[in-house]
Amino acid sequence: MELLKKKIREEGEVYEGNILKVDCFLNHQIDIPFLKEVGREFHRLFKDCGVNKILTIEASGIAIASMVAEEFDCPLLFAKKTKTKNIAGDVYTTAVESYTHGTTYTVMVSKRFLGKGDKVLIVDDFLAIGNALNGLITLVNDSGAELAGCGIVIEKGFQGGGDRLRAKGVNLQSLAIVEKMNHETGEISFRE
Amino acid sequence: MELLKKKIREEGEVYEGNILKVDCFLNHQIDIPFLKEVGREFHRLFKDCGVNKILTIEASGIAIASMVAEEFDCPLLFAKKTKTKNIAGDVYTTAVESYTHGTTYTVMVSKRFLGKGDKVLIVDDFLAIGNALNGLITLVNDSGAELAGCGIVIEKGFQGGGDRLRAKGVNLQSLAIVEKMNHETGEISFRE
Repeated sequence: MELLKKKIREEGEVYEGNILKVDCFLNHQIDIPFLKEVGREFHRLFKDCGVNKILTIEASGIAIASMVAEEFDCPLLFAKKTKTKNIAGDVYTTAVESYTHGTTYTVMVSKRFLGKGDKVLIVDDFLAIGNALNGLITLVNDSGAELAGCGIVIEKGFQGGGDRLRAKGVNLQSLAIVEKMNHETGEISFRE
Repeated sequence: MELLKKKIREEGEVYEGNILKVDCFLNHQIDIPFLKEVGREFHRLFKDCGVNKILTIEASGIAIASMVAEEFDCPLLFAKKTKTKNIAGDVYTTAVESYTHGTTYTVMVSKRFLGKGDKVLIVDDFLAIGNALNGLITLVNDSGAELAGCGIVIEKGFQGGGDRLRAKGVNLQSLAIVEKMNHETGEISFRE
């Protein structure tokens, strides 16, 4: 998506440790007209997949996924993060390791809102190693729902999570794939 | 908002400890066409207030605030919660006590995205005691931005937070104000 690459080049900031900061338009302050375009682009990419539910994870996936759900005119479900290991009630849970923070958290969705008959499009802002996305895919599989695909705004291609999922046959579409970043020069290269 | 009251009556569940569960349409699974109506209603209520930024707090405020920001065609900023007390960098922070969880957390926004010239509409899903909302108002005041108003989906009127803010002159509008709930009968009464 050319508009996204332009915004990353013009407004993104590269920091040591493979950090790409886009908090001025994507995950702190949110450029809503731009996000509408993101929603439309994901709809274009997945409109023939029978999607009837959008799944994301709190917090920064929610605004994006709201715009996608609007385009699909279907419900949105956001998985919750918790540090509690023993969760009571009718929920699907899985453990996710945070590469950035070096911790493990539990991701959960209520069983009432995910199950057989659902065709799920997972949406998130970033994909790097793929731990969070793998966690969401596990929840979808555990619930008996069908995974229609995964839509990611920015994939860090050099961290390999996306290609590992594609190799497994997941219909994963990223709107921009960063192949190289240099925190000294600020340079960012995208996969063609 | 009659549609909201109807949804609360039909889909909400009342639990002991003043808990009203609406996670089937508002804060876990999200009914996007309904939320569009919520966005339109907040726009109708605040359209003459010069709003140029929507502020909410992660996580369950984000989907609602996205729909409101879409109606106003302005950026959305979501405040982040953290347990870290010492936060470096150019951020406004304030401490918020969680009535539900009995803990205190820090709420923060980047100074780059809030300041003089901003007319802010704060949006959230619930208002009870008012601690989170008071925290967001503090951030707006500290930044030098102007508070245009607060838009709440469900206010628990009997917990008093909303009336305390109205008494201080805050332009607070709630789409439904619950005056009484009974977890034994499931009965819910709204303020007229």
